[in-house]
This record gives sequence, C-alpha cells and structure tokens, in this order.
Amino acid sequence: MKQISGGVCAAKGFKASGVYCGIRKNRTKRDIALIYSEKPASAAAVYTTNLVKGAPLIVTKKHLADGKAQAVICNSGNANTCNADGVEIAEKMSCLLAEELGISAQDVVVASTGVIGQRLNIEPIRQGIPKLVAALGDNSSEAAEGIMTTDTKRKEIAVSFDIGGVECKIGGIAKGSGMIHPNMATMLVFITTDCAIAPEMLQKALSTDIRSTFNMVSVDGDTSTNDMVTVLANGMAGNAVIDGEGEAFSTFMQALNTVTVYLCRKIAADGEGATKLLECKVTGADSLETARIVAKSVICSSLTKAAMFGADANWGRVLCAIGYSGAKVDVNKIDVRFRSAAGEITVCVDGAGVAFSEEQAKKILLESEIEILVDLKSGEAASTAWGCDLTYDYVKINGDYRT
Amino acid sequence: MKQISGGVCAAKGFKASGVYCGIRKNRTKRDIALIYSEKPASAAAVYTTNLVKGAPLIVTKKHLADGKAQAVICNSGNANTCNADGVEIAEKMSCLLAEELGISAQDVVVASTGVIGQRLNIEPIRQGIPKLVAALGDNSSEAAEGIMTTDTKRKEIAVSFDIGGVECKIGGIAKGSGMIHPNMATMLVFITTDCAIAPEMLQKALSTDIRSTFNMVSVDGDTSTNDMVTVLANGMAGNAVIDGEGEAFSTFMQALNTVTVYLCRKIAADGEGATKLLECKVTGADSLETARIVAKSVICSSLTKAAMFGADANWGRVLCAIGYSGAKVDVNKIDVRFRSAAGEITVCVDGAGVAFSEEQAKKILLESEIEILVDLKSGEAASTAWGCDLTYDYVKINGDYRT
Repeated sequence: MKQISGGVCAAKGFKASGVYCGIRKNRTKRDIALIYSEKPASAAAVYTTNLVKGAPLIVTKKHLADGKAQAVICNSGNANTCNADGVEIAEKMSCLLAEELGISAQDVVVASTGVIGQRLNIEPIRQGIPKLVAALGDNSSEAAEGIMTTDTKRKEIAVSFDIGGVECKIGGIAKGSGMIHPNMATMLVFITTDCAIAPEMLQKALSTDIRSTFNMVSVDGDTSTNDMVTVLANGMAGNAVIDGEGEAFSTFMQALNTVTVYLCRKIAADGEGATKLLECKVTGADSLETARIVAKSVICSSLTKAAMFGADANWGRVLCAIGYSGAKVDVNKIDVRFRSAAGEITVCVDGAGVAFSEEQAKKILLESEIEILVDLKSGEAASTAWGCDLTYDYVKINGDYRT
Repeated sequence: MKQISGGVCAAKGFKASGVYCGIRKNRTKRDIALIYSEKPASAAAVYTTNLVKGAPLIVTKKHLADGKAQAVICNSGNANTCNADGVEIAEKMSCLLAEELGISAQDVVVASTGVIGQRLNIEPIRQGIPKLVAALGDNSSEAAEGIMTTDTKRKEIAVSFDIGGVECKIGGIAKGSGMIHPNMATMLVFITTDCAIAPEMLQKALSTDIRSTFNMVSVDGDTSTNDMVTVLANGMAGNAVIDGEGEAFSTFMQALNTVTVYLCRKIAADGEGATKLLECKVTGADSLETARIVAKSVICSSLTKAAMFGADANWGRVLCAIGYSGAKVDVNKIDVRFRSAAGEITVCVDGAGVAFSEEQAKKILLESEIEILVDLKSGEAASTAWGCDLTYDYVKINGDYRT
C-alpha cells in the first residue's frame, strides 16, 4: 500500500468540483462541492446517532437503501437541520443535481453542514449546480474546500493497494472542526474507491472501521446532528468483486483504515481553535471496550485539554478522567507517560505520582503532536483516541459563530 | 423558613475557623478550615463516584461508619490524591486535630482540595492546627475562605425553620469552581444543623436531596476525585428527634433543600472563568429521569456554553445537546425559550426555528443569569440543572493551574 495524491479523484472514474454559489456571505470561500462517479457505484454510509438529525441525512438514508449511488453533493454554511421544510429542500437539491447530471435522484448522496435552524435557500444551489457540474475534473482539493466550515485546513488523502494483482485506489475528504464527538457515525467524510466490492461488504467494512477510527475522535464532546461518512466504490479498477471475507477483504479494510485514521488525525488536529493534536493511547486493558472508554474519556476532559494547551504536565487530570470514565479499572495499577517529538517522560506509576523534570515535561508538551500513554497493566487490549487542546480560540470561534 | 446570617455557625453549638498554615505559597490566602460542634453530632455524607478517590474520602468514610462526627477539617492547595502515602497523611491530620480538640479521631471528617498527585506535607498542618483551634468562634466566613481554590467568591448560607414549635437552624459552606460535574456526590460542601435527627434519616435526607441539587450542577464535565458533601446535626435546638418520615422530616428536607439549591447556584455562577450563571429548566418530560438527562446535557454542552458567553441565541446547539443526551424524546415537539432579567424570547417551536428579534435576544443574553427553558410537551415531569458559560478565563485558569 502506498500513499498517492488525488484525494477523492485518485480512484478511476471519479471526478469532483467545488465552487462558490452564494450560501455564504464570504464570496472567496467555496460553499458547495460535488463528487461524481462515471459508473453507478456500491455505496455505504453511517450516520450520527443524535436524535436531532439533519434533513439531508434522512434523504440520503432513503437514497442508499439499494446500496447504490453515483454522486455526492454537499453545501457548507447551513446545516439544513431543524427547519420545517428541510427534507423538501434536500430532495430538491438531489433532483436538481440528478437532472443536470442525467442520473436518477435516487443515486444522489446529499449533505449539508453549517449553522442549525436557519432555512436553507434553494436559489443559490439551483444556480450553483450547473457551475459545479461544468467544473467537474481532477479537483478533489476544491471539493474538500467546499465542505469546510471553521476548518482551517483541507483534509484529503488517497492510497493505492493491490487486490489479486489488480491496482485499486481509495481516497477521501473530510470536514471537522467543531461539534465533533462522533457516536456510531461521524463528521462529514466522503470516500471513493475504484475497488469492486459488493454493497453489503462495503457497509460491513465501513461499520467495522469507524468503531476504532471516527468514533474515537472528539473535539468538544458535542455529537453533531449532521455527521455522516459515505464510501462510493465504482469497481472500475477491474479486480474480482469482493463479495465475502478473506484476503481481498482484509486488504481493502487495511486500505480503508489508512484513509480513515489519516482523516481522524487531521480532523482532531484542526479542531476549532486547536494548537495541538492529542493522541491518547491506552494499552494493557482487560477488554477493547475498556481501552476505548478510557482513551475517549481522557481526550474529552476539558481540564486535560486546557492543561495540554498550557503545556502543563498535570497528569492528575488524566487519572481523574480515567476514574470517572465509567470503565472498571484498577486505579492503583495505572502508569501515565507523555511523549512527543521532543522525547518521553513518565509522570505516574501505579496510580501515584513520581518525581520528574518539569522542564523536560514542558519541552515535550510544547510540541504540536502529543501522545498521552496510559498503561492499565491489566490485560492485552489497546485503543487510541484523537482530540485536541482547549484554547482561547475555541471560545472565540464559538462565542459568536452565527454573526 | 427564613434566611439568616452565620453560615455553618448559625446552628447552636457550632464554631468555625479558617487560617493560613503554609500549604499555599500565597500567604494572604487562608488554606485550612475547621468546623467544630460542642456536642457529638449525627453525620451523613455522600462522596464522588470517581474510581480515583482522594485519600481523605477513604478516611472520612471509615470515620462516619457509625453515623457520628464532631469536627470537620479541610485544607486547600493540595487534594492529597494519587499519593502513595495519602491515607496515612489524612489519618495523621485527623489524629492531630482530635488531640488538640480532645475528641476521638473517629469523629473527625477530613477533606482536601487542590492539585492532584503532589505529596501533602503534614508539617504546615501540624503547625496550623493549634492556630485553627485557638481561632474557633463565629467565623463561618473564614472557614468558607479556607476551603476556596480558584473560587472567586465565598459560598455560605443559613436558614431557620420550625420543627414542632422549636426553632432549628441549618447552614452550609461550599467550594466549587473547576472539576465540577458531580455524580452521586459533589464538590466540597459542609452543612451544619442543630436540628435533632437520627443518622439514618439524615443520610436519607442528604442522599435524596443531592439527586436534584448537586448532581444537577456542572462546570466542565469533569467529575472530581475529591467531591464530598457532609451534614453534621448536633441536636442542640432541642426538638423531638426526627427518626422517621412525616411532617418534621419534610420540613427538614425543605430547609436542607433551600441551603443546597442556594449553594448549587453559587457554585455554578462562580465556575472557573464564568461570567454567567446558566439554568436549564426542562418541563413537559415523560419522566423525571428524562427531564434530568436533558437539562444536564444542555448545561454540559461546550458549544452552548460558548454561545452563552458570546450572548449568541444559537438555540440549534440546545437542540443538538438534547438530541445526543441519550434521553428518548420526540424532537419534533421541543420548544426553546431564553429568559433573563431583561425579558423572555421564544426561539424554537416544535423542534424548528421561529422568527425572532436578534436584538432582543442579545439584550436578554447579555444578563448575568440566563434561563434556558426547554418544554418537551410530552408529560408532567420537570428538572433544573445549573452551569455556567465557557470563557477565555476558563482556558487561562486551566492552561496553567499548577504553576
């Protein structure tokens, strides 16, 4: 497997575009994106578990009932959520796009991201769709920009891998930033592959993967109403269709995981206001469930996040977050270390503090990627969770998001 | 029932003191407090559910096994938690105090609050105890100051009430600020009363009360390792002992609730960095459990908290927090209003936005006490939760707490 360029356009037969259509006031920011497959593709998706669901998710779920899709349209600047006519508008978006592309509206994945509870005007979208379709090409980056909200960086990746001697490719784009605490599904992520895989195996691969990837990310503990991950697989690589478990499926899972872990790290590192990526790696857990609960509790702790912003080795907050996580752990066995490009330091052994150099700890925590290593010393299970620090800018961004 | 002055010294037979003994570097801040009852008192307590527990809680729990206590000692500046010799130090604190007071060490409630994982030096405490005992008097305020950490305001209250024609009093002090997300027990709260009540009825009153009071408070979602609420009842008012349910017990519960709700509001309003008290009042729930889950989810949402800091009527975040709360609610029935001293405004009806004046909303949200009113329109149950806004100062305080 090797990393390649091209994002969602790396896989054969996929084109993308991103333009400004007028949903946002800022004319220099693309606010609508399109991904299109030359051929109808197998499609799988996972959605937020929030009971308040964005209208586009309701429409997409209906469209993907047959496991097939050919295009993805997504606007930023408005989430089309908690609006009386939301579903109607999302269906209109699908129809207008399908008409322009000459495909069935049932094969359109529709998504929206932005402010909740403001009516989404269809007019800019109606005018934007012909421009979007005209701009289709090797433009993964423009599509990645079109779905950004308070994201400061584009998030895209692609890899190539080998299935039975045939080269396949898989790539994805994502938006993250705030209201990021996925549960079952996640923020907006669109993945494309030319690998031939049956819809039910594609869904299985995605549903399994997100448990250790997107569901282990949190920026602020708020599970969004509009989270969604979709994968489109158009089969144009020409490999034998993956229709069951086995070596080919494992290889595909591995390639998918490379794409999703990359996007998870990018989303966490670019969390609203973040200056640091936090990775909590839990080892020695008695079960995978325990490892996951502990890792996620640590990266969700506001106090730990603020301490990391201040490069303060306040490991007591890590212990505290483990203690209230709900996982049954022996707190007298816990070791904690901090690690970064600047080195590694042990701060807690068997649940109690050990002497350490504050100077060295500071140096380690001043780096932009921090690993919080927790060893529960009670078993073999391990898990990683991704988050970011809590900063002045998070407060600034969210103190006045709408205006 | 009427509010009176005197805090924990309002009830007959209780004295208190607070002095500087040298645990903190800042010599102008009292760092140790004492509450003493002339007579042995019935005692009840509830403790944090965090698996990582402060050593003083382990010692206190043992001491209160017989339902009796006569003194409370509490230091600030160090939590005595995650230290190899923590229990030993907490026991030493009890013994030194018991010796000085001429009481049994078994009748001492011991508590600590401050940084986790740094060894607590007994020497300043050894030297401080004679000063503390010498200073005993009508000094509730000094004791309230002695337990403060990043609190900016003293928290104390007392009320008088009537049991069978006999005037009884109850008063309390509290510390809050950060790592405040009580679960079963809470931050540090010490309550005294001269009402005669059996230990088991006292425990019942406290355990029932906290479900709708301290357990409905959150500053940052972090459940502390050292949370504890204790009540000492020395019976010196002279009322007939309350040893079962009935009118007298109800009157006592009401007085206790007045004290605890007052302290909850003070703790939330003085949360780390807070500029605003948030009260989420949920009505129309199908069960008390649903009402509590929804109310607490709203006041815990970082995004809602940041919006309130910015006086931004971003009600979509309230809906979002209800949706991921885990409570089963019909999201298409939810109404949301904001209310303060400046007025009231409806922003969401039946789960969808309604037109409202942004100017009026701003005016309402610029006040220092904000009510977020959520009507689920699905039943009769109601609940209130207390929290505060998320501000630059929360990040500042917690970015570098230890140094």
